[in-house]
Amino acid sequence: MGMVKIGGEQVLAAVDQCVVGRHCRPDAPLRAVGRKAVLRNLSDVAAMAARPVAILASATLTAGTTEADAEELYEGLRTTGAEYGAPLIGGDLSIHANPDDPIVVSVTILARPALPEGRVIRRNGMQPGDLLAVTGKLGGSLGSDGGGRHLDFQPRIEEAIQLGNTMGNDLVAMIDLSDGLASDAQRLIESNQAPMRCILNTADLPIRDGLDWRRAVGDGEDYELLFACRQPPPQELNGLPITVVGRIESHDPNLGTVLARTDAGLVDLSGLGWEHGSDS
Amino acid sequence: MGMVKIGGEQVLAAVDQCVVGRHCRPDAPLRAVGRKAVLRNLSDVAAMAARPVAILASATLTAGTTEADAEELYEGLRTTGAEYGAPLIGGDLSIHANPDDPIVVSVTILARPALPEGRVIRRNGMQPGDLLAVTGKLGGSLGSDGGGRHLDFQPRIEEAIQLGNTMGNDLVAMIDLSDGLASDAQRLIESNQAPMRCILNTADLPIRDGLDWRRAVGDGEDYELLFACRQPPPQELNGLPITVVGRIESHDPNLGTVLARTDAGLVDLSGLGWEHGSDS
Repeated sequence: MGMVKIGGEQVLAAVDQCVVGRHCRPDAPLRAVGRKAVLRNLSDVAAMAARPVAILASATLTAGTTEADAEELYEGLRTTGAEYGAPLIGGDLSIHANPDDPIVVSVTILARPALPEGRVIRRNGMQPGDLLAVTGKLGGSLGSDGGGRHLDFQPRIEEAIQLGNTMGNDLVAMIDLSDGLASDAQRLIESNQAPMRCILNTADLPIRDGLDWRRAVGDGEDYELLFACRQPPPQELNGLPITVVGRIESHDPNLGTVLARTDAGLVDLSGLGWEHGSDS
Repeated sequence: MGMVKIGGEQVLAAVDQCVVGRHCRPDAPLRAVGRKAVLRNLSDVAAMAARPVAILASATLTAGTTEADAEELYEGLRTTGAEYGAPLIGGDLSIHANPDDPIVVSVTILARPALPEGRVIRRNGMQPGDLLAVTGKLGGSLGSDGGGRHLDFQPRIEEAIQLGNTMGNDLVAMIDLSDGLASDAQRLIESNQAPMRCILNTADLPIRDGLDWRRAVGDGEDYELLFACRQPPPQELNGLPITVVGRIESHDPNLGTVLARTDAGLVDLSGLGWEHGSDS
C-alpha cells in the first residue's frame, strides 16, 4: 500500500485485481466477483490498521456480458464499498475485442490512518522474541466447487484498529492472510531487513473444523490478520478469537525462514503456500 | 472524476483503462501503452484545472509477455507519472490464464484542486451566450499506422491551471477532447441540466495542417481542452494558441445539440464522433 501526502493529510492507496479464470472461476456470478475484488482491498487496508474512505473500479467485460450482469458487477462493487464506509467514487468500463477474453476487474482503494498520531502498521519492525498471532480460524476458505468463504469474508478492519489502539507500540507488524499462513509469514519476515525466522506451533493453530494443520498453514485466502507483537495480545476482539501461533527467532543459516513445530519434529515450510495461478 | 474529503483535504481520483486491441494496437510497444494510460488520466485531471499527485496501476499481462516487456510497461507508467509530479505509489500485476488474452492496464490517478479556494472546473455551469474555445490544433491524432500524437501527447495541466487563474469565474466548464470535438462538445452540454445547444464555426477551427474541418470535429484523441467561458479567453497560453470555436445557444427543439456553421449552411453534428471500439 502506497502513501502520499495531500495538503496536510496522509492518504493511503492500493490497487488489486480480480481476473476471472485466475482469482475467480469463470462461472462465478459477477456480483460476487465485484464483492470479492473490493473485499481483498479492504483486507489490505485492515492489515495497516487504516480506515477505508473510497474505492474506484475499472472493468473490462466480454462481448457476451449482458447489461444485467454488468449491473450485478457494479452493485457488488458499490454495495461492498458502501458497507465498509468506502463509496465508489469513480469507474471505467471497457469491452474486450474478442468474446473469449476474460473479465478483468481492478479496484483501487483510498484509506486514511486510523491510529493515534497517524500511525499505520507496516510489515517491518519485527525482532527475535516477538510473538506471532492470528485472528479467527484458518484453512478451507476455497470450497471444492469454487465457492466458500474466499468469496464473502469479513475484512478485519475494526479488529485491526482496535488491536492497534489496545496494544499501541507492542503491535509491531501486520499482514493479511491471502496466500496462506506459511507463505504470508515468510513474506512478513522478508519485509524486514534483518534476517529472522519464525516457528509456528502446529498444536496451537486455530484450525477450521475437519482440517489438519497442513491446510491451516497452506490454504490461501483466509483474509485473517497475521501480526507480530511484543506482548501477548488480547485473547479475543469483539468475540473474534486471537491466537498466538508462533514466535520470531534469530536467523539460523541452517534452517528455513518458516518452520512448523509438529509432533514429528520441525518441518520447513519455506516456499509452501497457495499461489494465484493455480486453477482455483 | 470523483472527489472525497480526507481529513481537511479534498482529494480527486479517477480511473481509466488501456485495453490492448481496443485503445492501443496489439503491436504497440508496452512502454508506449503504459505512457498513454497515464497521459489519458493526466488529461482528465487537466480538464478540472487540478494538479496530479500520484498514480497507481494494475496490469494483467499475457503468458507470452517477457520480463523485459513487463519492465518497459512499468517504466512507461513510472516515468510518465514522475514527469508530471505524480509518482507511481502502488501496483498490482497478474497474468492471464490463456496466451491469447489481451493485456489490460488500469491506471488510477489522485489529484488535488489547484485553483484558489479549492475550486475545480466541472462540466456543468454553462449558459446560453457562453463562448466555446479550445487549446492547440485539432484532428489527425491517430496515424494510419496506429502511431501518432495519441500515443504521446502533452496533457494541458499547466495551461488549464493558468486559464483558471487568469479567467477566474469566467471559466465555467471544461472537458478534454478524447472522442472528438463534436462528441465531447455534446457530452459537455449534456452534463448541464438545462437543455442547450452549441454552434461551432468551421471557419474558425484550429485545424491541423492538411485536414478539413470534418476531421477536426470528428477525429478522436486530440487531448486538447474544450472549455466554456463568459468572457473572451486569452489568445494564447505559454505559446499554445487558444481559439474561440463557437458559442452556446438556447435550446431549439427543431435543431440538434451540436451544429456546425459551414459554407453550405448548418450541419447537425449530434451523434458524430470517434468511438472507442473501432479498430484504432
